[in-house]
Amino acid sequence: RIDGARLLARLRELGRRGALEGGGVCRLALTDADREGRDLVTGWMRELGLEVRIDAIGNVVGTRAGTEAGAPVMMGSHIDTVRTGGLYDGNLGVLAGLEVVETLAAAGIRTRRPLAVAFFTNEEGARFAPDMMGSLVFQGDLPLEAALATRGIDGATVGGELERIGYAGAAPVGAAVNPVHAYVELHVEQGPVLELEGVAIGAVEGVQGISWTEFTVTGTSNHAGTTPTRLRHDAGFLAGSVIRFARELALELGGDQVATVGFLELGPNLVNVIPNHARFTVDLRNTDAETLREAEARLFTFVDELAAAEGVRVGRRTLARFEPVAFAPEMVARVERIAAALGHSVRRLPSGAGHDAQILARMCPAGMIFVPSAGGISHNIREHTEPGDLEAGANVLLHTVLELAGL
Amino acid sequence: RIDGARLLARLRELGRRGALEGGGVCRLALTDADREGRDLVTGWMRELGLEVRIDAIGNVVGTRAGTEAGAPVMMGSHIDTVRTGGLYDGNLGVLAGLEVVETLAAAGIRTRRPLAVAFFTNEEGARFAPDMMGSLVFQGDLPLEAALATRGIDGATVGGELERIGYAGAAPVGAAVNPVHAYVELHVEQGPVLELEGVAIGAVEGVQGISWTEFTVTGTSNHAGTTPTRLRHDAGFLAGSVIRFARELALELGGDQVATVGFLELGPNLVNVIPNHARFTVDLRNTDAETLREAEARLFTFVDELAAAEGVRVGRRTLARFEPVAFAPEMVARVERIAAALGHSVRRLPSGAGHDAQILARMCPAGMIFVPSAGGISHNIREHTEPGDLEAGANVLLHTVLELAGL
Ligand SMILES: NC(=O)NCCC(=O)O
Ligand SMILES: NC(=O)NCCC(=O)O
Repeated sequence: RIDGARLLARLRELGRRGALEGGGVCRLALTDADREGRDLVTGWMRELGLEVRIDAIGNVVGTRAGTEAGAPVMMGSHIDTVRTGGLYDGNLGVLAGLEVVETLAAAGIRTRRPLAVAFFTNEEGARFAPDMMGSLVFQGDLPLEAALATRGIDGATVGGELERIGYAGAAPVGAAVNPVHAYVELHVEQGPVLELEGVAIGAVEGVQGISWTEFTVTGTSNHAGTTPTRLRHDAGFLAGSVIRFARELALELGGDQVATVGFLELGPNLVNVIPNHARFTVDLRNTDAETLREAEARLFTFVDELAAAEGVRVGRRTLARFEPVAFAPEMVARVERIAAALGHSVRRLPSGAGHDAQILARMCPAGMIFVPSAGGISHNIREHTEPGDLEAGANVLLHTVLELAGL
Repeated sequence: RIDGARLLARLRELGRRGALEGGGVCRLALTDADREGRDLVTGWMRELGLEVRIDAIGNVVGTRAGTEAGAPVMMGSHIDTVRTGGLYDGNLGVLAGLEVVETLAAAGIRTRRPLAVAFFTNEEGARFAPDMMGSLVFQGDLPLEAALATRGIDGATVGGELERIGYAGAAPVGAAVNPVHAYVELHVEQGPVLELEGVAIGAVEGVQGISWTEFTVTGTSNHAGTTPTRLRHDAGFLAGSVIRFARELALELGGDQVATVGFLELGPNLVNVIPNHARFTVDLRNTDAETLREAEARLFTFVDELAAAEGVRVGRRTLARFEPVAFAPEMVARVERIAAALGHSVRRLPSGAGHDAQILARMCPAGMIFVPSAGGISHNIREHTEPGDLEAGANVLLHTVLELAGL
């Protein structure tokens, strides 16, 4: 059994790196706050005797030798956050991994296969798109050079920031040089389902498809008082109309379709000037691949038709695109069985959020364990999970990993 | 007759202060660029022998003595611009005033009443609201203290910026200490009417009503992937819906009703976070006072009802509010008559933009002369008026002022 108090103490300590007044954290990927968090966690890894490897995209993997050589059973997640992040999103999976290692060490247990604890760079995608960038490079589907050249919302590049904060490591990337036997990620649900149903543990079946598009609109700035409506080429009108349309689209497609405009900037952004510039993102998600494609098609058609009617130009760029993912059935069943054996209520459910596990699933069996999020709230400084739930999740992680790594 | 080439040379020289790459100017009120523009124009005033007075809100008035003492006939406008401004908006009225003075001086003509050329602080309202701030303080309806305490879009205050750029003058403000016999403002139309009808001069009948409201919305940030639509409290959804509604409102009320969302910011403004914050402005205008009030009422009702449905809080702040203004009939008739006498085509029209003349109209007979704007484009770096039209407007100004000031 893991030590819940020690886990919580580490979560709180990490939460002080990039802490916001009023609670929560802002530890956007590769900022100074992220470096402080990385230094802290890497220090803990070394204290626990893990062999620490930093790769060329800044992923950090701490490994504990097994009684046999070979590919490790890996636990992990991320420690970057959004601008209004909580203490648990990502951090839980990493620090619970350390807790598993410390628990085994204290009990004098060495597993057959090596164990690894990893945190991946820029999982959130809040500063640099796509999300899950570090795991994508680790696995190999995103070329390192493309990732390093990515420019963030503040104009900085991934490569430049990695150098700046001292996390441009030497270890090579790609599945071929990074064999992993199995990957298990503990995470807060970030949604309302477990809490609403009073269930302690989620056995995650898969992750819904994710589509991020950035639109850049060029209209004509003109005077807000003198320009008749019919003569306007208003970039902001297109943006506002898409915000409205996204909501209607989600309601119309129904099911688990969601649609979000989270980012928007206008230019020149002055009260009495018709905007000549708008840049905004649309985040579409669905567990069904076909419906997600339909949502994209309808969005693009809406934008193209309205742009023509308004006389504005629109550029479109895919920031991230992930098909729905199903985790290996034996991993889902294992989590479910172990949770029940430990006496916890458990249910299967899909993940609404993207996770590094969905990328690792391309190179090894991968699974996820969810614990409830109070009020279904995440990406919010009030993100909260009860200490008992954190502990339950970490114990399920411990026993899942023990089973996978063997004694 | 004024010297059109000299007028154009001054317009171009002033346009180099705050010049943008690609043309146009950004000379937001009380910035360093505005200071450079002020220094240039104040220098020209002194070269022309005007007595320069700077008042406590930074308005600059250059006066040429008449053969009799008494209140001057004032020409003027503003030299601040929006972020994507042209060479003419405001600047024309000020530099044509200097041109009138230089023409009279060259001809050895001294008027009976004194002549004054003024430029008023922060007419645009782009950095600090309300617009027409300097003339409002000069005339007296806006208390100096309130104006000085106004915080701009970048957080700076009017008072602090006036001190910083060295234009917090000593001259007192208020109509009582600033008697003006009559005020005449030459300005580019900034709208499409004169050009479309092939008319050279507009005799401005009045200015439509202006209503600027800033809304601040507080929602709940949450995860874009995991939060079902019905559980969202999306501040950005309210903002986008208002952008859409503003357009519908303008079309429905018809006539000359316009509605513009020019400014919008979201927070935390990240692709995968439902916005918990939105701040945006709505600019409503109508020549009819009653319809403008109806537009406001319908906008406020829409916002209140949608906020309740979405579960977000909304704060509302009036940034500027001006009733429609009618200029003194004898001034409109005078401009019309003089333009025709000089051989120019002329028509009466209302102004869609706010102007310092509408504030001066509260303390003396005030009138305006419009010249065409190519394509009806303004608040845009492509703002343009043909040199011949600039010259025609300045000649109408010269003769209007001569008639008002007497010989
Ligand atoms: N877990 C999580 O919040 N990941 C960020 C990527 C996403 O937007 O789903
Ligand atoms: N003339 C002019 O553009 N004034 C700015 C105030 C307004 O928005 O009408």
